[in-house]
Order: sequence, then C-alpha cells, then structure tokens
Amino acid sequence: MRDFSQDHDWLSINTATVRKSRGQELPLTEIIEACARRGIRAISPWRDQVAAAGLGTISRLVKAHGLALSGYCRGGMFPATDAAGLQAARDDNRRAVDEAAELGAPCLVLVVGALPGALQGKPAHKDLAFARTQVRDGIAELLEYARQANMPLAIEPLHPMYAADRACINTMEQALDVCDELDPSRKGDLGVAVDVYHVWWDPKLRAQIERAGRERLLAFHVCDWLTPTTDLLNDRGMMGDGVIDIPRIRGWVEAQGFAGYSEVEIFSTGNWWQRDAGDTLAACIERHRSAV
Amino acid sequence: MRDFSQDHDWLSINTATVRKSRGQELPLTEIIEACARRGIRAISPWRDQVAAAGLGTISRLVKAHGLALSGYCRGGMFPATDAAGLQAARDDNRRAVDEAAELGAPCLVLVVGALPGALQGKPAHKDLAFARTQVRDGIAELLEYARQANMPLAIEPLHPMYAADRACINTMEQALDVCDELDPSRKGDLGVAVDVYHVWWDPKLRAQIERAGRERLLAFHVCDWLTPTTDLLNDRGMMGDGVIDIPRIRGWVEAQGFAGYSEVEIFSTGNWWQRDAGDTLAACIERHRSAV
Repeated sequence: MRDFSQDHDWLSINTATVRKSRGQELPLTEIIEACARRGIRAISPWRDQVAAAGLGTISRLVKAHGLALSGYCRGGMFPATDAAGLQAARDDNRRAVDEAAELGAPCLVLVVGALPGALQGKPAHKDLAFARTQVRDGIAELLEYARQANMPLAIEPLHPMYAADRACINTMEQALDVCDELDPSRKGDLGVAVDVYHVWWDPKLRAQIERAGRERLLAFHVCDWLTPTTDLLNDRGMMGDGVIDIPRIRGWVEAQGFAGYSEVEIFSTGNWWQRDAGDTLAACIERHRSAV
Repeated sequence: MRDFSQDHDWLSINTATVRKSRGQELPLTEIIEACARRGIRAISPWRDQVAAAGLGTISRLVKAHGLALSGYCRGGMFPATDAAGLQAARDDNRRAVDEAAELGAPCLVLVVGALPGALQGKPAHKDLAFARTQVRDGIAELLEYARQANMPLAIEPLHPMYAADRACINTMEQALDVCDELDPSRKGDLGVAVDVYHVWWDPKLRAQIERAGRERLLAFHVCDWLTPTTDLLNDRGMMGDGVIDIPRIRGWVEAQGFAGYSEVEIFSTGNWWQRDAGDTLAACIERHRSAV
C-alpha cells in the first residue's frame, strides 16, 4: 500500500468539492488555478462546469498546467419512458465520451440513473427491475461507442439510498455482474468507480473488490460518512471526520494493483461549501496525508 | 396472494406510526383503544411505550381487546466497547424476550446495532467487521435463551444508510447468512423481519426471500420510500405515496407461504405525526387495501 503521508502526489480533487466557496459558485477555471497553485496534480471535473466555461478553454487550461484527470463526471442516466428519452440519453452519453476524450480523462464515470422522473419528484413508474434492464442496455450500447474512442466506462455503484432517483446499480456485486455480462474479456473497457461513501457498509465489499481486480478498478473516490448524516445528498464528510475506515478499503483496492489517484468528492451544503475553497483544498491535502 | 382489497383483517399497526398525534406523544393505551375501535386486529408495540404504560397494563389491555401482536419492537443493539456493555446488552435483550413472551408476540424483532456510540454522534471505532462479529455472537447467545422461552428472533436487516449507527446487518443475504450459521436446522427459532423500506432497492431481494422460505420469514413491514426523502430516519411515506412496488414484494413473500400480518411502520416527523392519529389510522386502513 502506498504511503500518502509525506506528499499529495496521488490526490485528485473532484471539482464538486469546491464548486462553492463561501456559498458562492466558483467557476471551474478558478478551481483549476487553485488546485494547480497547491501542487495538486489531478482533478475530476463535472460536465456542467466544463460546459459553463467552455470545453476548449478547460482542455487548454488543464494541459497548460500539466494536470491529469482521474475521471470525468459524468455519463449515465440511461432510463427513460419512451424512445425519444432513450435516444436523448444515448446522444448525451456519446457527447460525454467525446468530452472525456478531449480532456484526456482515463475514464467516464457513469451514474446510471433510476426511475425516470424520480429525481424531479415525479417517478413515472415503480419498476426498478425494468430501469435496471434499460441501464444494462444503455451501457451495452455506449460501450461500443466508447471502445471506438478508447474511453473506458466506470460504473459507479451508488449507495442504496439513491436507488430511486440517481442510480439503480447499488452494490459492487451488481455493477460487476453487468461488467461480466457486457465485457467478459476484461480488457479494461468497462469497470467500476469505487466511492467509499457508497460502498463502505457492504459486507461483501472486500470480496467484490478482489473480484473486480486491477482491470475493473478504474477510479477510487473518498470522503467520509458522518454520524449523524443530516441530508441524503449534500452532507458528506471530510476524510477522517466520519466512520469509514478509508485506509482499510484503499488497502484492498491497492492490493489488486490499483495505483491511481485518490479522488476527493465531497458535497457539503452546510459545511465545506460554506468555507473558503482554499481552506477546503488545504483540508483535502492534509486529510489525504493523514486519513486516506 | 391474499386479497387485501375488501377488508383489513391482515393489517397490523406498528405503534410508532401513531406514537404522535398532532405532534403530541400518544400513550400506548390510547393507541390500542384507537386501533381496537377501528377493527384493527394486530399491533406491534415498542418497548419504551410499553414501559411507560406498564407491561402488565398493556398485556391486560391487549388481551381484553383480543388483539394479536405481529412482533415486538425491539431487541438488539448488541455491540459494545467493553464487557460491561456487552453484559448490559445481554441482560436487556433477555428482558425483551421475557416481555415479548408476556405480551404473546410471535417474534422479537432485532435491530442489531452497529458502531458503539455512533447513534449518539460519538462512534467509538470504525471497525464495522468487528461490530458484525459482536452482533453474530450476541444473537447466538440470545438465541439459546429465546429458545427456552419459545420466542423466535427476527433479524431485521436495516437499510445501508443505518449501517453506522443502528444496524450493521444491512441486506437479506447478510441476515440469512447469520441465520444459516446459527440455526442450520431451520426450526423457525431464528429468521428475518422483511421491511420493504429497508430492502426494496436490493437486486437480490426476490432470490433472498426465496432462500429465506417460510420458516425464516417471521414478519413483513410496509411503508413507502418518498422521492425526495428529506430525512434519513423520520421521512417514511404512507404506502402508495412512494416508489416501492409493495404488492410485488408481498407476492414474493406470500409465495413462500407467509400468511401473517402486514405491519405498517411509518416514522414521519413532518407529515403523519403532525396529523390526528385517527386520520393516520384511517389512511393505513385505506392504503392497506389499495396499495399493499
């Protein structure tokens, strides 16, 4: 297991972590500059932030600073109620692949979606099994396109509390079942993004990380689970402030040969997004050394 | 599958559902009277409510109304940081078994506990695997006592969002692994309480219900998952108001031979606990017929 205590060479910042500074939106260009100033070597940007700044601008800025990407957030949201919706998801996911390639991302992270309309509080139906079928089909279709673009797809199993509205792939085992079905040759085209926040509770986590193996472990995300957690989405903790034994999980992932970045992804309306982004980045660096 | 549309013979009210009426605590004696007046044939009371009214009082009142119990809430909370804590949990669980027997409950529901102190916001450690070992040992020990008292133990797998602070058994598969280890003869001494709120998201749910079989399906709890859900604990929905396909899950459970009560358990600070308990009970009856 790598020693992170002396530097932050393997720290990546998911830009959502500092998308707000003192409660105000922070443009991606400023986030990139702030990371580069602190010797942070990698980021994982979100599509909406990239779109707001312009893909070409961000691509040039990333390259100018010699920044790596640890992933690109995000594709997915496959389920729909009709053919037009499925086609729109298909087209949008292909654009996401193209953007990820333009930015030099090592993978496109997939938050696969769930019951259509649920995220807007108006679920169109309750058939989770059908949504899962649409997700499987959507990934299968996108995989062909992504292979042409040499862009690996990383299925991110989301915590079961998001099964209705954000992602109906909710365990590593379920994600790997999809991988095994669609990519039996294990060439690294299709794998998983392991976010400790989503999977830390799973009694089968270690076994499934071992099942994934190096070829399928495409990204590793960290933050912490607070007790109490006051919001289902935006109350994630800084590493070390919660109950997740992050070093143990990182050990399991690295035992499989994963040697990539440890990406900090924190959504925190009440705490970190209220602080100055510089302070938040300093905390990420410190906790990366002491608690990851 | 039984037809619930014409009556509410198989409705049970978990008394937490109406523990508050118009925001005020409602004594268990009044809850029992209100249920009996509406022809509700079964309840599942909570220990703290029983203790407040007196075990003898509640036992007599339940018998006087000819009420059945669908379970008793609850034992568990096994993990501790020291021998004294383990002993206290052991003693308290034995008292819970005795109370359940006195009340004529068909099973004692176990919310098994998790990281000691986490529920109070001060987790003593992060070793979830160790907590799970303590839970397994605690159930094993209690099972001997419960067998003497002819009181089946129903492990309730709780949603993974409670893994830190309430229960570190978080899937049916995990609960049934414990059952298989501790009760290989499947005599009905040890089983599971299936609460749709906790397990609806699980892609292995149907298979695990089939694995459980009639001997291990000791209780069936219903409510609904709202989109959005605004609180991790106390924002459960009335059946039909959320995204859980309850009839489908009930069908799976009944296909195994389960023929017991469908127990409504709703914690709802912002909605149902603000209403009059009589209105809430009326809604339970109506939705039991139309949405369960």
